Amino acid sequence: MIKITLPDGSVKEFASGATPMEVAKSISEGLARNVISASFNGTTVETETPLTTDGSLVLYTWNDAEGKKAFWHSTSHVMAQALQELYPGVKLTIGPAIEKGFYYDVDFGDKNITDAEFKKIEDRVLEIAREKHEFKMRSSSKADALAFYKKENNPYKIELIENLEDGTITFCDHATFTDLCRGGHIPNTGLIKAMKIMSVAGAYWRGDEKNKQLTRVYGVSFPKQKDLTDYLELLEEAKRRDHRKLGKELELFAFSQKVGQGLPLWLPKGAALRERLEQFLKKAQKKAGYEQVVTPHIGQKELYVTSGHYAKYGADSFQPIHTPAEGEEFLLKPMNCPHHCEIYNNKPWSYKDLPKRYAEFGTVYRYEQSGELHGLTRVRGFTQDDAHIFCTPDQLDAEFKKVIDLVLYVFGSLGFENFTAQISLRDQENRDKYIGSDENWEKAENAIINAARDKELNTVVEYGEAAFYGPKLDFMVKDALGRSWQLGTIQVDYNLPERFELTYKGADDKLHRPVMIHRAPFGSMERFIAILLEHTAGNFPLWLMPEQAIILSLSEKYENYAKKVLELLENHEIRALIDNRNETIGRKIRDAETQKYPFMLIVGEDEEKNGTISVRRHGQEGKGNTTVSIAQFAEMVQEEINKTLKTFNVE
Amino acid sequence: MIKITLPDGSVKEFASGATPMEVAKSISEGLARNVISASFNGTTVETETPLTTDGSLVLYTWNDAEGKKAFWHSTSHVMAQALQELYPGVKLTIGPAIEKGFYYDVDFGDKNITDAEFKKIEDRVLEIAREKHEFKMRSSSKADALAFYKKENNPYKIELIENLEDGTITFCDHATFTDLCRGGHIPNTGLIKAMKIMSVAGAYWRGDEKNKQLTRVYGVSFPKQKDLTDYLELLEEAKRRDHRKLGKELELFAFSQKVGQGLPLWLPKGAALRERLEQFLKKAQKKAGYEQVVTPHIGQKELYVTSGHYAKYGADSFQPIHTPAEGEEFLLKPMNCPHHCEIYNNKPWSYKDLPKRYAEFGTVYRYEQSGELHGLTRVRGFTQDDAHIFCTPDQLDAEFKKVIDLVLYVFGSLGFENFTAQISLRDQENRDKYIGSDENWEKAENAIINAARDKELNTVVEYGEAAFYGPKLDFMVKDALGRSWQLGTIQVDYNLPERFELTYKGADDKLHRPVMIHRAPFGSMERFIAILLEHTAGNFPLWLMPEQAIILSLSEKYENYAKKVLELLENHEIRALIDNRNETIGRKIRDAETQKYPFMLIVGEDEEKNGTISVRRHGQEGKGNTTVSIAQFAEMVQEEINKTLKTFNVE
Repeated sequence: MIKITLPDGSVKEFASGATPMEVAKSISEGLARNVISASFNGTTVETETPLTTDGSLVLYTWNDAEGKKAFWHSTSHVMAQALQELYPGVKLTIGPAIEKGFYYDVDFGDKNITDAEFKKIEDRVLEIAREKHEFKMRSSSKADALAFYKKENNPYKIELIENLEDGTITFCDHATFTDLCRGGHIPNTGLIKAMKIMSVAGAYWRGDEKNKQLTRVYGVSFPKQKDLTDYLELLEEAKRRDHRKLGKELELFAFSQKVGQGLPLWLPKGAALRERLEQFLKKAQKKAGYEQVVTPHIGQKELYVTSGHYAKYGADSFQPIHTPAEGEEFLLKPMNCPHHCEIYNNKPWSYKDLPKRYAEFGTVYRYEQSGELHGLTRVRGFTQDDAHIFCTPDQLDAEFKKVIDLVLYVFGSLGFENFTAQISLRDQENRDKYIGSDENWEKAENAIINAARDKELNTVVEYGEAAFYGPKLDFMVKDALGRSWQLGTIQVDYNLPERFELTYKGADDKLHRPVMIHRAPFGSMERFIAILLEHTAGNFPLWLMPEQAIILSLSEKYENYAKKVLELLENHEIRALIDNRNETIGRKIRDAETQKYPFMLIVGEDEEKNGTISVRRHGQEGKGNTTVSIAQFAEMVQEEINKTLKTFNVE
Repeated sequence: MIKITLPDGSVKEFASGATPMEVAKSISEGLARNVISASFNGTTVETETPLTTDGSLVLYTWNDAEGKKAFWHSTSHVMAQALQELYPGVKLTIGPAIEKGFYYDVDFGDKNITDAEFKKIEDRVLEIAREKHEFKMRSSSKADALAFYKKENNPYKIELIENLEDGTITFCDHATFTDLCRGGHIPNTGLIKAMKIMSVAGAYWRGDEKNKQLTRVYGVSFPKQKDLTDYLELLEEAKRRDHRKLGKELELFAFSQKVGQGLPLWLPKGAALRERLEQFLKKAQKKAGYEQVVTPHIGQKELYVTSGHYAKYGADSFQPIHTPAEGEEFLLKPMNCPHHCEIYNNKPWSYKDLPKRYAEFGTVYRYEQSGELHGLTRVRGFTQDDAHIFCTPDQLDAEFKKVIDLVLYVFGSLGFENFTAQISLRDQENRDKYIGSDENWEKAENAIINAARDKELNTVVEYGEAAFYGPKLDFMVKDALGRSWQLGTIQVDYNLPERFELTYKGADDKLHRPVMIHRAPFGSMERFIAILLEHTAGNFPLWLMPEQAIILSLSEKYENYAKKVLELLENHEIRALIDNRNETIGRKIRDAETQKYPFMLIVGEDEEKNGTISVRRHGQEGKGNTTVSIAQFAEMVQEEINKTLKTFNVE
C-alpha cells in the first residue's frame, strides 16, 4: 500500500501501482471525467503512470494552467504527426506548449507553408484526435534513441539527444507516431475537439541566427468547439482594442523614427488625458499628505553607485553621458528613488516630522532592446506616478493601509473592479539573502498582511517573491477581456535608507534609520493608459474623456447657436467642441462615434427655437435622442461622473 | 568750417578744430556741465579733441552707458596712479571699465593686498581727484613706447605694445601719471567725488592659467557721494534678496553634490510654486488656443543632425548616450523644437487647420562649465515654458500680437511693470547671411514692428541682432532693484520648417512651408523663479504664495479652533497651515515673518468665542491687527489677489 496526500491535506491509501486516474475515480466520477493531467511530488506524470511510493498528488483539469499545458503539449504531438503525414520528409525539432496554445518548429526543407494549407492540417489533426489514441511514455537508451533519429535522418533530434544523459531519455507514442518527449499528456487524443493553426513564422534553430531558419507553426486547441469560437472572438476584440490602434485613431500619441523608437510623443488629446489623470491623483495625494517634488532626469553616476543600481543594471542600461570638459559622468535616471533620498537628506529630521511623503510624476529612462518594444506597454521612457514615504518602523502599518486606500480609490475611479493583491514575502527557508533585521522584516510583512486583511483585499501570498530589500504588495487587475495586468505596486525598502545613510532623530534623541515605501498606483502613465485603452476600448470614464461632448449642427445656419451652446457648456465645466464641417448629420454622427465622444449634441431649428439640445449617447444607435436644456444636460453629465469619480476621503 | 550732425538729426557749423565740449556749450551751458565723454563718427574721442572734419557727434553724460564707461575708465587711471605711489615697483597691466565700475590687474610682486589697505588707496584716489587734473591724450611711436616701459621694467605693457601697429599707439597723461591708453576720458579728475575699492581677486595675465597670477583690484566711482551710498545699499539689498539665500530659507529648492551641480532639486514648497505658475500659464494658454504636448527628454542624434543643432553645439554639449546593444546614439534634448516639429509632421495639415500651437513645459539639458553655474540663473537642466506656433506667413501678424498679449498678461500678473521690448532685425547691409526669402523676412519684421506698435510697447530696434533664421522680440525687465533681466522671448523661424520639411496644403491645393514662432513668456521656470525671488524678496504676489496664511494659536488650548479655522479657509480655497508648536506667540510671529507668510492669523480666547481671527499682515510690524470673520478675511484675500491676477481674455 502507498499513502497519497492530496492538495487539501487529506491522505488516502492505495495499492502500489495505482494511477492518478484511479485516484481521481476514487474521489468522484465527475473529477475522473475532467482530470487531464497530474503531478506527483512536484514532477509531471501521466494520468496512467503507476504510483509506487508515498507522495503528494495534484490532479489538473482544463481549468488549471498545468491542465492546459498538457492539453496543448499533447495537441502539438498530434499536429506533428499530421505534418509528417502531409509533408513527407519534414524534420521535427521541438514543440512546446506556450501561454496560449503551442508551436512546433519544423524544417520543411525548401517548402514554404501558406495560410491556404492550414485547413488541411487542422482537418487531419481532428481526424487523428477522433480516433482516441492514448499517449504512452516509454524509456529508451541513448544509443537506441540516436539510432532511431539517424534512420529518420533528423540532425535536430540527434543534437537534442546528444545533450541528454543516458537513462533519462523518454519517448511518447500515440497511434503510429513517436517523438522524443519528457511527458505530461492528456489521457487520449479524443479530448481535443477543436484545433486551429494560428500562424507560421520563421525561427532559427535554438534561437541562434547562425543556425538554419525553421518554420514555427503556431496552433491552439480546445476541449469544446465553443471555446475556440470564443477565443477567436476575444482575439478579434483584442485587436479592435489594441491600444496602438486606438491611440492612433483617437490621436493620443505617436512615435517618430527620428526621435527614436520606444519614446512616445504625446499628442494634444493624449497629453490632456495624462494631465487629467495626473491632476486627479495629485488631488487625492494632497489629501493623503503627499508633497510633490521635482527632480532632474539625470544624476551623476556616483548617485547610482551609492544606490547600487549601477552595479546591478549599469551594463545593460543607457550608457553614461560624458561632459565635454571636467570629466563628469551622468546617467539618465532609471528611477526616482535616489533623487528623493537626496531630497530627504537635504535637512535633518525628527521622528515628529515623519512620515515624509515625496511624490513626483517622474519620467525615467530604461533601455529595452528594440525587439522588446511594444506600443506604450514596453517603452524606453515613461513617467511613473512615483512616491516615496519615509517613516519610522512603527508607522509602517498605518502608512501601508493609507496607500492601499489610495490605490483602491484610483482603481475604483477608473473602472478596474476586478483584481487580486499578491503579497510577496521572504523565502522562509533562506533568510540570509535579505537585507534588514528579522524584527523589521516581521514588522513589514505583518504590516502588509494586516493591511491587506483590514482592507478585505482578495490576496495571494507568495513566499520567496519579496525583493531582497523588502516585502511588497502588487495589484493584479483583470481587464474587460479577462486578461490580467500588473498595476500598482507598494514596496517596503530597508536598503536605500541604509545606502543613503538616511536618519531621523528618535524620541530617545538618537539617530535612527527610517523605512522607505515605494509606491505607484498607476505604475506608469504610459502602461496605465495603454491598459485603460484596452480595458475601455477608448470609452474612458466620463470624467476622464478629453472631450465629453461634440456639438453637431444640422446645417451651417445653426453655427451661432452651436457656439452659444459651447459657451454654456464651458460655464458648466463640460469639455466640448463643435463639428462645423459642411457634412451631413449622418456623416457627423458616424465620425463622432469613431472618435468615441460620449455625447453627441445635435442642434437644429427646433433646438435653437427652444434653447435645447438633442442628446445622443455614444454607442447607442437605434435609441432615440433625448431633448433637454443645457442645465438638464449638465446634470446628466454630473450624475454620470459621480457614479465613477468619488471624492477621496482620508480616514 | 565743419558741419557737425547731432543725434536729433540737426546739423550745426563750427570752425575746424572745435572740441565736443565747445559744441556742448553752443547748445547749452547745462549740457556742457554734464557732458563727460563723446564719440565722433562712431569712435570714442575726448571732450577736448579738436574736430577737423564733418561728422556725427554724440555727447554723453553720466546717464549714458558710454558716459559711465568713460567715468570708470578715467577712475581706473587715477587708481593706477595711487597704487604706483603707494606700492612702489608694482607693475600695471590692463584696467578697463566693466558693467559696474572698473578693475586694474596689477603685479604686486610678492605682496598680498588686504581689505585693510583699501581705505588708504581710496583716500589717495580722492586726493588726486580733487586736484582736478585733465586727461591728455598723446601719440607715441612704437619705439618710444617700448623704451618707456623697458625703463619701467614692465614686461606686460611691452607685450601689449608689441602686438600693436606703429602709428596707432597712444598714451594718456594726467598729473604725474602716464599710461598706455586708447582714450575716452572725462574732462578732469575733479568729477570723481566718490570711489570705493570693492574687492581683490586673483586673475591670470591674459586669462591664461599658464601665465603669472596678477591681483585684480575692483573699484567703483561716482560723481556724487550719495550715488555711492545708494549703490552700496543696493548691493546689500541684493545680497538679502539673493535667490540662493532665499531659496534655502524658504525651502524652495536645493542642490545635491551626489545628484550633480547645476541640477536643482525642487523641494515641496518650490515644486508647489512651479506647479502654480505652470497652471496659471496653462490656463491662459488654453484660452489662447494652445495645445499641451509631452515629449521625451532625449532624442536620437539624427534628430539634432536634422535640426542643425548637432553641428553647431554638439561638441560643447552633454555627449551622446550610447545603447548597450544595437549601436544607437541619443542626446539629452537641449531644446523642445525638434520634438514639436516631429509632432507637427505626424499628420498632413491644411491651411484651414493652422495655426497649430504646441505648448510644453519641457525640461532641457545644456552643459555649462561648473564655474559658470549660479543658483537657478545658470543651471544645467531647466524647464522652458515653451511653445511653437506653426502658421502661414499671412497669420504671422495676428499670431505675434496674440503672443505679446499673453506675455503682457504674464508680466502684469507677476508684478513686472517696468520693461522694454528689443526688436532684433536683419543687418540691413548684409542680407545674404539670413535664411528665408526677402518677402518672408519683410513680412516677419513688419509683423513684429506692427505688433509692438499696436501694443504700445516701449521698444528698442537693433539691426543685425536677428538670428540667422528669423527676427525676434525680447523683453528686458527691470526688477525692484533696477537691475535689467531678459525675460520672455518671441522668435520667428524659417529654418526648422525647412530642415524638417514641414508642409501644409494651401488654398491653392499646393504644399507650402509654415512659419514657426518660438516663444516663452517666463523663459525658464528656474531663471524666472530666481528673478521673481530677487524682485519680490520672496513676497510673491498673493495668488502665487505656496501658503497664503499661517494660523498662530496663542496657546495649545486653541488648537481645535485653529483646526476649524484651517478647514474654513480651505473651503474658501485659501492655502494655510497651523503653527501648533509650543512656542510663545512672539516667537511664532517672528518665524512667520522670516518665512514670509503674507497673513498671520492669531487665534485665542476672544477669537474662539466670537468665531473670528486676528489678522496681521507680513512686514507691517507696529500696525495693529484687524479682527475679522473668516468670510471677511476671505474677501480681503480675494480683493488683494484681484489686484494682480486678472482674467486673461483673448481678443
